[in-house]
Amino acid sequence: MVQKYGGTSVGDADRIRAVAEHVARTRRAGHDVVVVVSAMGRTTDDLIRLAGEVSSSPSPREYDMLVSVGERITAPLVCMALGDFGVPAVSFTGSQAGIITTPEHSRAKIIEVRGDRVREALAEGKVAVVAGFQGVSTERNVTTLGRGASDTTAVALAAALGASMCEIYTDVTGVFSADPRVVPNAKRLARVSFDEMLEISATGGRVLMLRSVEFARRHHVTLHVRSSFTWEPGTIVTEEDPTMEQAVVTAVTHDISEAKITVAGVVDRPGVAGRLFRALATKSINVDMIVQNISSHGTTDISFTLPRLDLKTGVEVCNELANELGASGVSSDDAIGRVSVIGAGMKTHPGVTAAMFETLAREDINIEMISTSTIRISCVVREEDVERAVRSLHDAFELG
Amino acid sequence: MVQKYGGTSVGDADRIRAVAEHVARTRRAGHDVVVVVSAMGRTTDDLIRLAGEVSSSPSPREYDMLVSVGERITAPLVCMALGDFGVPAVSFTGSQAGIITTPEHSRAKIIEVRGDRVREALAEGKVAVVAGFQGVSTERNVTTLGRGASDTTAVALAAALGASMCEIYTDVTGVFSADPRVVPNAKRLARVSFDEMLEISATGGRVLMLRSVEFARRHHVTLHVRSSFTWEPGTIVTEEDPTMEQAVVTAVTHDISEAKITVAGVVDRPGVAGRLFRALATKSINVDMIVQNISSHGTTDISFTLPRLDLKTGVEVCNELANELGASGVSSDDAIGRVSVIGAGMKTHPGVTAAMFETLAREDINIEMISTSTIRISCVVREEDVERAVRSLHDAFELG
Repeated sequence: MVQKYGGTSVGDADRIRAVAEHVARTRRAGHDVVVVVSAMGRTTDDLIRLAGEVSSSPSPREYDMLVSVGERITAPLVCMALGDFGVPAVSFTGSQAGIITTPEHSRAKIIEVRGDRVREALAEGKVAVVAGFQGVSTERNVTTLGRGASDTTAVALAAALGASMCEIYTDVTGVFSADPRVVPNAKRLARVSFDEMLEISATGGRVLMLRSVEFARRHHVTLHVRSSFTWEPGTIVTEEDPTMEQAVVTAVTHDISEAKITVAGVVDRPGVAGRLFRALATKSINVDMIVQNISSHGTTDISFTLPRLDLKTGVEVCNELANELGASGVSSDDAIGRVSVIGAGMKTHPGVTAAMFETLAREDINIEMISTSTIRISCVVREEDVERAVRSLHDAFELG
Repeated sequence: MVQKYGGTSVGDADRIRAVAEHVARTRRAGHDVVVVVSAMGRTTDDLIRLAGEVSSSPSPREYDMLVSVGERITAPLVCMALGDFGVPAVSFTGSQAGIITTPEHSRAKIIEVRGDRVREALAEGKVAVVAGFQGVSTERNVTTLGRGASDTTAVALAAALGASMCEIYTDVTGVFSADPRVVPNAKRLARVSFDEMLEISATGGRVLMLRSVEFARRHHVTLHVRSSFTWEPGTIVTEEDPTMEQAVVTAVTHDISEAKITVAGVVDRPGVAGRLFRALATKSINVDMIVQNISSHGTTDISFTLPRLDLKTGVEVCNELANELGASGVSSDDAIGRVSVIGAGMKTHPGVTAAMFETLAREDINIEMISTSTIRISCVVREEDVERAVRSLHDAFELG
């Protein structure tokens, strides 16, 4: 089994000893264990601050050499602590574990997991502790996989080793029907499907990184999201079970990290939208929802959401293109929020959309944009209405 | 040319930028540069503290994985800073630089320096920045070379690459005729021979590690010990120049880190000393000076010095052996100090010993033990007399 421990789970020496004790317990229960660790607490932030102090534009290769160090500190510390609990353990860097990646620094993708030394360690009866978030490129340089990507390391190792389970230990007890800080009676979900988890991660649920869920789904790795503070059973993320009745709605999520741009009065001809969104993609802006009104007299309004951090750049791009697109104006709004309801059962229950709109209308909450997938409906509303929207939807779908 | 920067030289972001600027200057002067770095300031101590917090007896392999991280932080930071000065640079871990070592953790010895990637980087017009203090064992584990061993990394790389010079940058301006904190008019030495430097390092001069000087002598690597704060020329350590007149005395050193044990009334027969010092060696106690009085009526007193930190263990070993050796008693003294005068010219000037003893006698300083080499005379005196002894000898031999 693979167990991944996040930054707060290994935040100090006491936490590391608690993790070691739990790994020792897992071993006594008869499991081979591969542990994947994140950097302790703020270590990576401290390294990034140092990089900013020595250079205005750090070399991407050197940046990865630097920020991969945090996990390399945690891994041997966990092994040392395991030694005190009588468990032989050996630590590996991403490179030593054979995590082979593409060469793009800071956002490398895993090409292959060799894992020979990890397998050898297991065969010798040892626990293997692997530094997460990093690998080695085909050009023999240290790479990192992007923020929070230790989950991806864990899932990739689990897939490569044929592990029965990948446990993701964190500081919450699992995946909830809504953010418990907003909805006090939110319920921990015992089980969600990969598809639901993907939608939850994509729309504001911060427990699992979207990418690691995608990886787990593609490689059929069952995840167990649980707490390293209470050690109680958490949420199992796995294949949809077609024999079971699906809950219509599983969770309500929200996200207030985005902003909206509207390009008004664009001439309505083929290629206009392509031109606009290509220009945004060139600036590495991740556009999320896009809404285009049906044209009435030859022009149209295009609205889209994007991360607030990218709003300034996004507006610049749109202004530069406004003339070429024949647009009458560009406006932006950074006081929006998105509320989503997610559930695999929606596919066969057509009434959910109506129920969602009725609930928001009852609360006098105006819907500014709508987007849907087969198992999700998202509405953009005013930021100040977001928490009220989440609570009312959570009640309306009886998730508490 | 190889440039090595110690912990204070890279102590913070400003220091790292200053180092990068100097490396850039060296490059503009037409030199290929390989930089070897230590960990920043207290980083290694912090890591060692963490190890102590998670485990009562850390695994040696994991300990090396952990403490090798400090240098791995400095190396990419120096590269980033070099980038800002327009100098392309690439960092390497000890393993990536091909520093192949024996497998003994925390005190591995360098077997071979492959240096292929370092050579490639130089060939591409880049500065190579190598993490000091570490290597990789023939068993593919990360090893460390012992405290302060970044100097050894630098010298080994210089030897392997055929570098014209290995510059050791530190927080002092060179090697002095005595410790300037004790002797205010101590002079910086422009040039010392390897033999002299070995004696200086062995008897209390803390600027260079004994081991790196031995390595440099064996591989004919000229060293330049200098300051990374003033950047002025420092001390050249090189082969003895037989065409030059040797200074009779070059430096006066002192050391107050040792203690003395006397085993009294030992029966005077072959094998006794061997038995005693083998037992001490088994406990990894580094014995320094040994004095055995000439036997008068079948017994003898053996006195030796050892690090104060080992005094308790040393006394235990001696007490355990006392009966077997027929000793009448074991006594110890931790208030001693050693004063040494060093000079290559001593070999041909027999009067130095007499002059040293006369000087100490004039100061009414009692000599408790004496040991000599061809270019050094050391006397053990009371600890409280050490500084006075150093000043009077420095004056007597006109080193100021």
